[in-house]
Amino acid sequence: MSLRKEEVSFCERTRNRTEPGEEIIHKITGFRLTESCPDTCARAGELHTAHGLVSTPVFMPVGTQATVKTVTPQELRDIGIQMILANAYHLYLRPGIEQIQRMGELHNFMGWDGAMLTDSGGYQIFSLARLREVNDEGATFLSHIDGSQHLITPESAITIQESIGADVIMVLDECPSFEDSFKKVEQAMHRTHRWADRCQQAQKRSDQELFAIIQGGTFPELRQQSATYLASMGFTGYAIGGVSLGEPKELTRTIVGETATLLPENKPRYLMGVGSPEDIVYAVDKGIDMFDSVLPTRVARNGALFTWQGRFNIRKSCYSKIEGPFDPTCNCYTCRNFSAAYLNHLFRCEELLAYRLATIHNLTFMNTLMNKIRDSIVNATFSSFKKDFLANYKGTDEKLRMSQKEKWLASQQFSKVDRG
Amino acid sequence: MSLRKEEVSFCERTRNRTEPGEEIIHKITGFRLTESCPDTCARAGELHTAHGLVSTPVFMPVGTQATVKTVTPQELRDIGIQMILANAYHLYLRPGIEQIQRMGELHNFMGWDGAMLTDSGGYQIFSLARLREVNDEGATFLSHIDGSQHLITPESAITIQESIGADVIMVLDECPSFEDSFKKVEQAMHRTHRWADRCQQAQKRSDQELFAIIQGGTFPELRQQSATYLASMGFTGYAIGGVSLGEPKELTRTIVGETATLLPENKPRYLMGVGSPEDIVYAVDKGIDMFDSVLPTRVARNGALFTWQGRFNIRKSCYSKIEGPFDPTCNCYTCRNFSAAYLNHLFRCEELLAYRLATIHNLTFMNTLMNKIRDSIVNATFSSFKKDFLANYKGTDEKLRMSQKEKWLASQQFSKVDRG
Repeated sequence: MSLRKEEVSFCERTRNRTEPGEEIIHKITGFRLTESCPDTCARAGELHTAHGLVSTPVFMPVGTQATVKTVTPQELRDIGIQMILANAYHLYLRPGIEQIQRMGELHNFMGWDGAMLTDSGGYQIFSLARLREVNDEGATFLSHIDGSQHLITPESAITIQESIGADVIMVLDECPSFEDSFKKVEQAMHRTHRWADRCQQAQKRSDQELFAIIQGGTFPELRQQSATYLASMGFTGYAIGGVSLGEPKELTRTIVGETATLLPENKPRYLMGVGSPEDIVYAVDKGIDMFDSVLPTRVARNGALFTWQGRFNIRKSCYSKIEGPFDPTCNCYTCRNFSAAYLNHLFRCEELLAYRLATIHNLTFMNTLMNKIRDSIVNATFSSFKKDFLANYKGTDEKLRMSQKEKWLASQQFSKVDRG
Repeated sequence: MSLRKEEVSFCERTRNRTEPGEEIIHKITGFRLTESCPDTCARAGELHTAHGLVSTPVFMPVGTQATVKTVTPQELRDIGIQMILANAYHLYLRPGIEQIQRMGELHNFMGWDGAMLTDSGGYQIFSLARLREVNDEGATFLSHIDGSQHLITPESAITIQESIGADVIMVLDECPSFEDSFKKVEQAMHRTHRWADRCQQAQKRSDQELFAIIQGGTFPELRQQSATYLASMGFTGYAIGGVSLGEPKELTRTIVGETATLLPENKPRYLMGVGSPEDIVYAVDKGIDMFDSVLPTRVARNGALFTWQGRFNIRKSCYSKIEGPFDPTCNCYTCRNFSAAYLNHLFRCEELLAYRLATIHNLTFMNTLMNKIRDSIVNATFSSFKKDFLANYKGTDEKLRMSQKEKWLASQQFSKVDRG
């Protein structure tokens, strides 16, 4: 069974569910590596999905509840976004899977015709929901919305994601805390492996790519064990999970670098929940192809806007005097049409338009960053691009970041959520 | 002095403030009555402004704080909005008049190149701010934002509005409560007349039309006195103020009908703060040309969407099953692109996109309504249009409306505000 997926990767497949009289839809899906950086592990590629070709490295904005907060699908397309992420956990709870299936799956429900990935819900169950019990069968938790009790198993995680209908789906994994003991992390890793096997067995649709998730916390030997084991199972893609959960950034980078080298070269590699512009540049260097994070959209709603020099908060009074755009070098809808002073005014008045305009700016920045990264890999200049980028870009202060993250996690427990 | 404005109405004017070397901008401004309904007092016309021709009857969405909440100027243009209203009171307090002037006046600051009207702030001072003292000099009040004390005089109300730069500006008026005694309302009316005279004297710019505001509460003799007095002063346009403040709808309609007949036929008539689709149809029947209200945008953010049958709340669970648009007869961006079920989901999740999509729907409805009204006047079928519209459209329950308004007014005192 583990070879089945391997054999059909990057070959012509037939959508396996057709109505009588309906034309059979042929889709070429899979991953093709197109360029490798001569100096680093960076690579460029193409992910072929049922909803179009995605050039990698790619950043996926997060549409937790069937919407990338504040923006329409058309605005995402105008920005150049190729692929988005939605959260199976949130959609399972609201509006519910039957509802999404009845509405023609998530693409149709939310009006997004580009590529899409769903997170299995593992991370959310272990971070947002009130976890009741985890055993080999699955995870029992209480909804963060209404406290109702639910059991998610590897099999139901796949059924849910098949009903949602994204192009890439994820195995259910157990996410330990980065502070957990070796033994606890090891146990979670083994359970993740058993669940990955059951997810692979449970998959029915052939027009969705199932990615495995490497666990193993901050322990190099566990990461190695997890990568080796899952790689042998022939998944279509591999994600690195359980990072960026509060551990120091340096440690994240080490784990990512060490894990990436153990993954099959011809499969896409996805670093879950990352991240900031600087984190992405570091991770591309280590051979990562796919990223998702709520960071650009969440910080936008707090007024923090990206530039090539770092993140600046438009709420600061200095911006109230600036007649020109926030970033004169930026070609986004916001910077083309509105002054920094106007954005500053909208944020000070807590006007809803502020959050959209800031989101458009930050997503345009992320998309431009990914385009620059891809171009530099294709032109064999990634190494100097990285050096220049990091020399100019002032990353967020690590201590400030950690304390902000803690505050946010505390505030989000059992309340409205963004990503989980 | 009172004749000056009369004489230059609807003739070619020259913008009076040009920089050396800058080309002098010639604008034809004024009002032209084009059609009159044979059966009612309804009329169609053209308001020529420095920012384009506005076909009347017209509905102006409210952009209190230099933004029509949730939507961009481009979205307003796409809907077909001709003219918007902004509040001098709010803009004077935040971002401040100097700031707006430095940014090239409000049109440039907010990116709206269509016609614009500013409310003088009279209504807000008497409803939102903590009023400290009103005397002949002006009104002293405490800001609803930070409690700081301000004095607005008729002269400063004009200076403020000249700095903001809208195409139509309003005199400062004193707005009594609809429950005030005859004597109090009469005194406020006389003060409003004295202030109107001072506003007219204070006006310096010739590319802005100054409208007077008829007061007189619910007393027919005062309304008659106010209309007659102000009409004799030769303003470019006349507004009916002090209605829709909590009095029964029937009374509003009577006041509007009686006041409108006393106003000059060749000048635009503006009913301030009205309103609902049915109120607008009734008022057009009485000869009103211009309307503004936060109603369509505010109720949209609560999920109440207009249809030709009345207002329905998209939050209701019945909409979660509807795969088609909320209103299949509607051609708005929202109904063309999203299902009722999706809108219902966004509202239940309190997603920010919900408020924008609902706003676009309601503003499109209002614009379509005004187009239908104008077409029916031009085609001499307004009378039957009105009959058909009112037969199908279920207005809001009067008792419910009054209690909702009271609740809202209470909640908005000294907190964030929408229109005031």
